[in-house]
Amino acid sequence: MITKLKYYTFAERPGDELHLDCGRSLSPVTLAYETYGRLNAAKSNAILILHALSGDAHAAGRHHQEDSKPGWWDNAIGPGKAFDTDKYFVICSNVIGGCQGSTGPSSLNPATDKPYGTSFPMITVRDMVRAQKRLIDHLGIETLLAVAGGSMGGMQVLEWTICYPDSVRAAIPLATTARLSAQSIAFNEVGRQAIVSDPNWNGGDYYDSAAPATGLALARMIAHITYLSDESMHNKFGRRLQNRDNYSYDFITDFQVESYLHHQGESFIRRFDANSYLYITRAMDYFDLSSENGSLKKALEGVKARFLVVSFSSDWLFPTYQSKDIVSALRKNNVDASFCEIASSYGHDAFLLEVEQLSPPVSGFLDSTFKGATS
Amino acid sequence: MITKLKYYTFAERPGDELHLDCGRSLSPVTLAYETYGRLNAAKSNAILILHALSGDAHAAGRHHQEDSKPGWWDNAIGPGKAFDTDKYFVICSNVIGGCQGSTGPSSLNPATDKPYGTSFPMITVRDMVRAQKRLIDHLGIETLLAVAGGSMGGMQVLEWTICYPDSVRAAIPLATTARLSAQSIAFNEVGRQAIVSDPNWNGGDYYDSAAPATGLALARMIAHITYLSDESMHNKFGRRLQNRDNYSYDFITDFQVESYLHHQGESFIRRFDANSYLYITRAMDYFDLSSENGSLKKALEGVKARFLVVSFSSDWLFPTYQSKDIVSALRKNNVDASFCEIASSYGHDAFLLEVEQLSPPVSGFLDSTFKGATS
Repeated sequence: MITKLKYYTFAERPGDELHLDCGRSLSPVTLAYETYGRLNAAKSNAILILHALSGDAHAAGRHHQEDSKPGWWDNAIGPGKAFDTDKYFVICSNVIGGCQGSTGPSSLNPATDKPYGTSFPMITVRDMVRAQKRLIDHLGIETLLAVAGGSMGGMQVLEWTICYPDSVRAAIPLATTARLSAQSIAFNEVGRQAIVSDPNWNGGDYYDSAAPATGLALARMIAHITYLSDESMHNKFGRRLQNRDNYSYDFITDFQVESYLHHQGESFIRRFDANSYLYITRAMDYFDLSSENGSLKKALEGVKARFLVVSFSSDWLFPTYQSKDIVSALRKNNVDASFCEIASSYGHDAFLLEVEQLSPPVSGFLDSTFKGATS
Repeated sequence: MITKLKYYTFAERPGDELHLDCGRSLSPVTLAYETYGRLNAAKSNAILILHALSGDAHAAGRHHQEDSKPGWWDNAIGPGKAFDTDKYFVICSNVIGGCQGSTGPSSLNPATDKPYGTSFPMITVRDMVRAQKRLIDHLGIETLLAVAGGSMGGMQVLEWTICYPDSVRAAIPLATTARLSAQSIAFNEVGRQAIVSDPNWNGGDYYDSAAPATGLALARMIAHITYLSDESMHNKFGRRLQNRDNYSYDFITDFQVESYLHHQGESFIRRFDANSYLYITRAMDYFDLSSENGSLKKALEGVKARFLVVSFSSDWLFPTYQSKDIVSALRKNNVDASFCEIASSYGHDAFLLEVEQLSPPVSGFLDSTFKGATS
């Protein structure tokens, strides 16, 4: 499947700005997105896929035949797959604040003609969803068959069902939470400190000079540990040494797990912007549906979508109890909510990897929603 | 209880060096230590306490009446406490490689008259124990009633029972492991990267200039998350804001949990040396009783001490299954091993905090060992 990154720019005129939770606004705003499959005549088969912290709009297929890797959720999106592009029109939208084609801190600030840097306004998960709604309107879709996503993508799913209850028939939040825990805020904060401690960060003003690559790589290494599990790290690396038979008795990279983390850090800096990392982790920290509404039940009161909530047994970043909290609050509101905990050793990353276990419930849920929508 | 830091220096003469696992040797070697209670005439009531990564010899009491805080395990060591100084002579020894009075990378290298820095030889947990054995010999103690310690202290406990089986009657490893997991190595490595990425680290040569305080503070912040638990962080901080009612929509410290971590980082840099952090975490990475002996059962074959192994239910750094592995290998060798998992929400730090739950099994175990030794 050859796919193409597209761009939609809006909020270009005064009075049409994108208003943000922080009280400021953005103008203009560009969202990068991709689409797979075909929108039917009734425009009733559109599914919006929402990505996690470091994801992008390139969820499936390849941009060029020779690309070594397909999009980040290619195992779940395509003909005959969980999100079946033979039946559905699948859209994946990047988030504002990001650095992969959408307006973010590395974008040019029209007021100064320089990159925003830290003059970029603080954004929230709800702001990301507000921008996506403009894209969906632009595509002429009144009601999405479903919104789906894992991790921060799942937070966007929840916001979609709350902010635009009449525009979403079904919601699939995976490996996510209704509010970031103290532990997750703590991990985000040490990642941010790694970035701002890098002298190259320079208060966020580094687009004309060397980027804070060391700090960003370290932030990614820290976060990556939280995406795996004790068990998956044991299975994948154990205590195996890297290209050696004995300890070096030195501070070089003795263990495979160290080498792997370094590799993760180094590949990340080639595709991600340090300021975007600061903004997006902060948006996640601020995500708390309960407190801003008094309770999670109250937050979900107006929701009309039916839900399939999925957690993964070894996910310790967004553990199962956090998904159960969502399900319980939905059911208190008499929302049709199915829950499924998938047994997996892959930790938080399981939502990207356990596609064989994920496909049957997801495709069944989508099919029954689609039948209900068209009957 | 007013206590006093003491020093023992040995390995001063050629031919008397402390030989290390890395193949190098150290001369001279100083160990800082403290003692509480009195050694009986039979010298049969001595208990050696071993500390964790960032601990020191000051385990109990105060150095000065006006000290705001007592030693790190004061709630467990003293008259009538778990390690009852009315009955026992308690010794706490610092580790080599450290920075709290014992020979480590910040010590003067006699060959150059400058601090060792990274020319300090790599040390192992076994090397730490080798040095402690010299201290115990110096104190005229042939057989320790018990060795006890949590986390890295527990690793030293295990090494004591393996290396000096005739010198230890009883062993109490708490919240520890027989080999560091891939996940723990990963956390150690990101901590080390935080330090070596700090420009002030300067290849470890910073004793005449500014120390890599930012990197060391960040390493501590990262590690500190692993000492707590999701539940304890939720109970202690939740999502409470720090001195504000609403989000700042800025990158300042919004959340109490962030403020707490910053505080932990800042206090740590006042008492710890960055190079010591590198050396000691590496010693932990290298700790693996199983592989160097073929199996954990084989590693523990010659052990003569009886054991009380204790884990804590919410400790995800050294989870209960790792303590159970130790117990199971001991029992395969017909070693008398009791096991106790203490229910606690405090995570890894529980071994320092759950003293009320810890005291009865520990004091019972010590009493019965002491009775057996003197009857």
